[in-house]
Amino acid sequence: MNIGIVGLGLIGGSLGLDLRSLGHYVIGVSRRESTCQKAIAIGSVDEASVDLSIMAGTELIVICTPIANILPTLEQLIPQVSSNTVITDVGSVKAPIVQKASSLWNNFIGGHPMAGTADSGIEAAVKNLFVKNPYVITPIDTTNPTAIALLEEIIKQLKAIPLRCYPKTHDKAVSSISHLPVMVSASLIKTCILEADTDVAQLSKNLASSGFRDTSRVGGGNPELGIMMAKYNRQALLESLQSYQHNLEELINLVEKEDWEQIDEYLQVTKKARPLFIK
Amino acid sequence: MNIGIVGLGLIGGSLGLDLRSLGHYVIGVSRRESTCQKAIAIGSVDEASVDLSIMAGTELIVICTPIANILPTLEQLIPQVSSNTVITDVGSVKAPIVQKASSLWNNFIGGHPMAGTADSGIEAAVKNLFVKNPYVITPIDTTNPTAIALLEEIIKQLKAIPLRCYPKTHDKAVSSISHLPVMVSASLIKTCILEADTDVAQLSKNLASSGFRDTSRVGGGNPELGIMMAKYNRQALLESLQSYQHNLEELINLVEKEDWEQIDEYLQVTKKARPLFIK
Repeated sequence: MNIGIVGLGLIGGSLGLDLRSLGHYVIGVSRRESTCQKAIAIGSVDEASVDLSIMAGTELIVICTPIANILPTLEQLIPQVSSNTVITDVGSVKAPIVQKASSLWNNFIGGHPMAGTADSGIEAAVKNLFVKNPYVITPIDTTNPTAIALLEEIIKQLKAIPLRCYPKTHDKAVSSISHLPVMVSASLIKTCILEADTDVAQLSKNLASSGFRDTSRVGGGNPELGIMMAKYNRQALLESLQSYQHNLEELINLVEKEDWEQIDEYLQVTKKARPLFIK
Repeated sequence: MNIGIVGLGLIGGSLGLDLRSLGHYVIGVSRRESTCQKAIAIGSVDEASVDLSIMAGTELIVICTPIANILPTLEQLIPQVSSNTVITDVGSVKAPIVQKASSLWNNFIGGHPMAGTADSGIEAAVKNLFVKNPYVITPIDTTNPTAIALLEEIIKQLKAIPLRCYPKTHDKAVSSISHLPVMVSASLIKTCILEADTDVAQLSKNLASSGFRDTSRVGGGNPELGIMMAKYNRQALLESLQSYQHNLEELINLVEKEDWEQIDEYLQVTKKARPLFIK
């Protein structure tokens, strides 16, 4: 199959490596000529260009740009491609993109491969990034079933786990298990920074160990990612945050009341539930 | 030196292994005869008994029992030992213990080695558990300086990093970097469990990855530890929780106001600060 990839970063570049290994012909587009050259050099694409017109003969196009560029990229692609070209994206928020994109293109399906590394850019591209990881697709009632079948076939070829849900279901799920942890974790770091007693502040830095390290990891990450979550998944995130505040408040009340039995119950429940979320 | 260890679990057992390697004569006490036998078998103690009278000839005694048993153990030790015996503990909360213990025994010094593994019990005892880890001691104005010198010498022999502070300073520091993360993390798990939409709840379990895994780790741990923190460090923990609520509220307000610039500032600060706490 002729497959196009727009945006040759970690995800786009890694996708290209696997698709070419599977025997597909991969055509890449990047805003920078130097990235196009690198993508060709590492074997991520067969050919690449800074010009979207190169996508003319593709049957499937995967938009792997940052979220803010997904809809503008789709609008620029439409005049260049044939009407049966299936177009998908890999953005980590789905409802705001899918709603608009589906009205522009009948063969658009939202997608979100749950894969990544701490690195970014074409230099970070690796083979088998998607193997055994969930790959969510979010078709809506008007999405062409042939397009869904085609995308699911590619996901299976990548040895990823295809999952299908509504865009809003996806956004609510990632809000609670991915975006909420960032805010919860960042607030923890902020609390430890703001300690007014300088002896306590210094000792905290000396004593922090694995508990602080793990709980603070995502809150000390790339601010751009945190802003992206807050900006594009704002409503779902606010609902998660409100629910979180409520649950924290409950725990604080139990500590205030010295209700050790109910605190035990609370922590037994969380201990028992956590493995359900951990693969 | 003749050194006594009361409570032969992970900490007591590991301490014995190292002290014997250093050439000290180690005498252990456990409530269970079977634990005494295991401690002897693994080389953690030279001799062991269920009877505290075995401690009569020791120069230093380390109480490694659960927090609730530290003060009762001290009271039972006092009639058995000579007045110049230095007694210390390894409890993770200091002010409530040190205040009472110091009034009972002039040669008492609170201690807290920042070391542990996910396992517990004498079976989990390992060599070099304390190496390069902070070991806090919390002498007060009335503590005998000779006792402080003796304990610090042993800490140095263990190749741990001795840190000295007031009991309350210790409790405030561990509250923010150790006990607060448990509550923050448990509330995250609770929020993810309580999702009412069954499709979202199921998808959350399928999509949860490293961000959720790390942020939820300590909140899914042993409930007994969480209760112990809340019970013995209640006041400091409540202060940390209130400060945390305030900082979370600030972040929520910024998301509500769509103030991306200030969210960026908030997350830049947390990103920059985190490495100060991570060794």
